[in-house]
Amino acid sequence: MATHGTAGAPPPLTITNVTLDGTPTALRCVDGVIVALGTEVVAQPGDEIVDGAGMAVLPGLVNAHTHAAMTLLRGYGDDLPLMEWLQTRIWPAEASLEPDDVYWGTRLATIEMLRSGTTAFVDMYWHGPSVARAVADSGMRATVSSVFIDGGDAARGASQRAAVLDDLDAISSFGPLVTASLGPHAVYTVSPESLEWMGTVVAERDLAVHIHLSETEGEVHDCVAAHGVRPPALVDRCGLLGPTTVCAHGNWFDHDELDLMAARGVTVATNPVSNLKLATGRIFDHPEARRRGVHVGLGTDGTASNNSLDLLDDVKVFALWHKQAAGDPAVLPADEALAVASGACSPLLGGGPLSVGGRADLVLIRTDTVEMTPSPLPAALVYGATGHLVDTAVVAGRVVMANREVPGTEEVLDEVRRRAARLRKH
Amino acid sequence: MATHGTAGAPPPLTITNVTLDGTPTALRCVDGVIVALGTEVVAQPGDEIVDGAGMAVLPGLVNAHTHAAMTLLRGYGDDLPLMEWLQTRIWPAEASLEPDDVYWGTRLATIEMLRSGTTAFVDMYWHGPSVARAVADSGMRATVSSVFIDGGDAARGASQRAAVLDDLDAISSFGPLVTASLGPHAVYTVSPESLEWMGTVVAERDLAVHIHLSETEGEVHDCVAAHGVRPPALVDRCGLLGPTTVCAHGNWFDHDELDLMAARGVTVATNPVSNLKLATGRIFDHPEARRRGVHVGLGTDGTASNNSLDLLDDVKVFALWHKQAAGDPAVLPADEALAVASGACSPLLGGGPLSVGGRADLVLIRTDTVEMTPSPLPAALVYGATGHLVDTAVVAGRVVMANREVPGTEEVLDEVRRRAARLRKH
Repeated sequence: MATHGTAGAPPPLTITNVTLDGTPTALRCVDGVIVALGTEVVAQPGDEIVDGAGMAVLPGLVNAHTHAAMTLLRGYGDDLPLMEWLQTRIWPAEASLEPDDVYWGTRLATIEMLRSGTTAFVDMYWHGPSVARAVADSGMRATVSSVFIDGGDAARGASQRAAVLDDLDAISSFGPLVTASLGPHAVYTVSPESLEWMGTVVAERDLAVHIHLSETEGEVHDCVAAHGVRPPALVDRCGLLGPTTVCAHGNWFDHDELDLMAARGVTVATNPVSNLKLATGRIFDHPEARRRGVHVGLGTDGTASNNSLDLLDDVKVFALWHKQAAGDPAVLPADEALAVASGACSPLLGGGPLSVGGRADLVLIRTDTVEMTPSPLPAALVYGATGHLVDTAVVAGRVVMANREVPGTEEVLDEVRRRAARLRKH
Repeated sequence: MATHGTAGAPPPLTITNVTLDGTPTALRCVDGVIVALGTEVVAQPGDEIVDGAGMAVLPGLVNAHTHAAMTLLRGYGDDLPLMEWLQTRIWPAEASLEPDDVYWGTRLATIEMLRSGTTAFVDMYWHGPSVARAVADSGMRATVSSVFIDGGDAARGASQRAAVLDDLDAISSFGPLVTASLGPHAVYTVSPESLEWMGTVVAERDLAVHIHLSETEGEVHDCVAAHGVRPPALVDRCGLLGPTTVCAHGNWFDHDELDLMAARGVTVATNPVSNLKLATGRIFDHPEARRRGVHVGLGTDGTASNNSLDLLDDVKVFALWHKQAAGDPAVLPADEALAVASGACSPLLGGGPLSVGGRADLVLIRTDTVEMTPSPLPAALVYGATGHLVDTAVVAGRVVMANREVPGTEEVLDEVRRRAARLRKH
């Protein structure tokens, strides 16, 4: 079985000799929270000590939309037209997925995320409780949903409701770093009756929601044809747009829909790399959304459509796309782009500047490297580097990666290779 | 002084236990050429031996357009509007550049390129002989030009001609891996008289040419206003378009101009990451250019406008941009994108599949990693990984990097930090 590096409470942690925003500092974490930060901080007896010489400390990044276990299907059908890819590769393979496949695929994703600076993620995939188990074993923080699809068949949707509630309970059992979420896949795969039922569940239980919304132009046209309204209006009247909702993509939102997202307090997860790879035609208008007060996060999407989980790679594409789209190199500067990737532009994602009293989710990044010389942060990180400069990852005050080593990696690689080979036979 | 790892001829080299296109193989290199390739290859007495277990062998990548020494100015004025960036940062700093600054800045760039899989590059910068010296000391292969600018002043241009010829001779003195090239900066910075003179030099000496062409819409408009023709027509009538010419960018080429490039055998170096970052409005239409038979290569541009030299990062943006621009995820598949980055789509860049009799410029890339599991090459490399998976680099049969270590790196980092601090005071 996997290494369970997360049993028991971690000891207090002191990190010395790091820089924060270019200034030498140290920090101390107790019970998952930063309790001291500054040049005066010293370790107490019994503390675990990490020497951060040659490194900068940053908030851990937050992957706002992914399907982690799709590492199993990474590179399976790249460069195919969308429907051929789904029909001949992804859907047949997913039909054979077993819960333990999802566990190991998610484990691999957590290793890749930690090694590239991500400490928390928002997930949607089959077998949510297996995702949650992998998250718990990784020591990461995540919002986990089981994907819900009824193919537009309300009766089929109704028959799945008990299983959804069971999944929510099972996901919630995996400790304080795992948040259960409803996962209606999209308006084109879930009946309005099921969406309405989910709206009542959200209202009763104050649950999180994770849904794909307005990813493609076809989705918008089909929704209008079938339901007489565009996707945001449909999910809003079902009660699914609120401050605990993450809408993935939003590429085809118009200005009124951006205002709706702002009014409801929704977080939109933009996934520019996936959108470019699948040629969605448009990408979420981040600058306009921010002008209108929409909360935003940055996602990689699943590795079947990216094929990386390295947010420090995607954050560059994110910034560059919007500079070009606006015709202005000053648009979406490095500090703003990195803030979005850190979850700092969404109360739901909960990242933000490191501060006393804040959660101790952070990463140490090597700054004494070829790629970071002689450029200052944050531009060095956004434009000049990718995630391989991340050395150490801390989640809720626990060191879950040191020296780029995540316990159990070899076992995870072996399991994923074996399971991926089986799935790809179908 | 720097470590000179390139003195004397290297011993024959045998690389064992690698995979090539997924098949186990070995290869042997003598006098800069691959002399044997296949499962039967064994090392001979006296050979240097590299064990490639867990790695794939690929042709070294070719950076078709860069200003290597601009590592000195990496991150200096990111996110500024173009003219403010040039006028307040780049030009004042460059006015203080000394030849040794260029040497050390280029050395840093060669380390970064080798560590991300690039074994050859096409350079244009001030103090070409210092660039050439750095190339020679790095063991890389490069085409090196001194940038030529006369500000549209023919008399000033005429006064610089002797220095240009001296630079060509000096650059050519740095051994067989360094090719001297003329470097007229662009039609908006060089007078037609100087361009014509360079055309005569090219005709007499069969020289290479490296020029920026049709990067921005403003350049095209200004050229028509000043000279009555668009930039490609101007340089063509000066005799500067031919099979030894690299035109950087080509973002605003129309279809007739693509046909002209094809007819003249020109290589166009596309730099999508730099173009996005500087918001050029359009990017070279690679799919259309290939349909019309244009030779192409992939460049990073300088690190002041990228800010990375990692072609395995840029090749992903290259492929993704064109998928989105075409509205088709099947456009520019991974194998084609990687071929362009390898120099295989230009006889001038001279890369291409590894084969017996071909030049021994190659890299070993770790495939037993988290990021490459379980995806097959080449998609794993193009979409899933960045250059940090490169372990070993070989140029002309010489191992110039092993285990990601390039001799002299610490000295280079120290020199660049010191010199960059001085330049940025201006």
